[in-house]
Amino acid sequence: MVKRTSHKEAPCAIARPLDAIGDWWSLLIIRDVFDGLHRFGEFQKSLGLAKNILTTRLRNLVEHGILETVPASDGSAYQQYVLTEKGNGLFPLLVALRQWGEDYFFEPHESHVRLVDRKQGRLVKRLELRSQDGRLLGPADTLVKPAGRSRRPRSGESRDGEIYDSDPKARPT
Amino acid sequence: MVKRTSHKEAPCAIARPLDAIGDWWSLLIIRDVFDGLHRFGEFQKSLGLAKNILTTRLRNLVEHGILETVPASDGSAYQQYVLTEKGNGLFPLLVALRQWGEDYFFEPHESHVRLVDRKQGRLVKRLELRSQDGRLLGPADTLVKPAGRSRRPRSGESRDGEIYDSDPKARPT
Repeated sequence: MVKRTSHKEAPCAIARPLDAIGDWWSLLIIRDVFDGLHRFGEFQKSLGLAKNILTTRLRNLVEHGILETVPASDGSAYQQYVLTEKGNGLFPLLVALRQWGEDYFFEPHESHVRLVDRKQGRLVKRLELRSQDGRLLGPADTLVKPAGRSRRPRSGESRDGEIYDSDPKARPT
Repeated sequence: MVKRTSHKEAPCAIARPLDAIGDWWSLLIIRDVFDGLHRFGEFQKSLGLAKNILTTRLRNLVEHGILETVPASDGSAYQQYVLTEKGNGLFPLLVALRQWGEDYFFEPHESHVRLVDRKQGRLVKRLELRSQDGRLLGPADTLVKPAGRSRRPRSGESRDGEIYDSDPKARPT
């Protein structure tokens, strides 16, 4: 296995969570929990993973506070894996991955699992990133503000109100 | 390295892209390109990766059509890595990962890189998933429609208009 740098101390919020998820494939376990699977045997059947690998991944997700174990809802001896609040916070990431997958990894005629609105049964809309004044934002409409420049908002000051001063790391348009 | 099942044929749009990205850590290369870095040396300096590992990851991203190489903008002999349309499509996923990271991996006082609206310099809003009629949707408001049930929309039929019939895999509320 490639030796990896830990990003636990990284000033980047994209880098820091990587250790927690550990392996992309662990997202499939999280997907399964969102989809209603909660038991070791259900994950094993769904993912076709060897017991030891699944055990390691589940342990990692529990250690990082993404999943937690609770007694089985049917009162049996089984323990169930459920998402913590932190785990539920991965919902937008899974939706983003799903929508990217739908866009680039399926032929128009290929059928695939789809995410629908529970109330109406209609397909959900695209994830949207908007500015404070409601404009839809794409990559070229945003840029990163280095950690060095960031500071805690003073009391009474809205983080949202912060003004950005020009920066060399501006993303190319 | 753990032997992995390929998800290239999976009916799930979350599973299928996993082979393309390959390694979570490759997202940091993609992040760097979004942030304006384009050269091997720039990635190496930013990520502190061994040349051979960086080379492998860049090749994987190019082979999967996420990055492409173009002549250096300054006319030098260097080649630059730029995002393809498919690579640009990863923007929402990176934003979702960033916002999750900001929520759960930083202390309130910790400074970190922040994504701002280029035009106004203000922090971007949270990613939003909405229903066709505009309701904000969380995990409990959605469920997955199995691939077996999905079909091509008939001509003149809107995919968005499709009605979902109750399903055992409904996500727990």
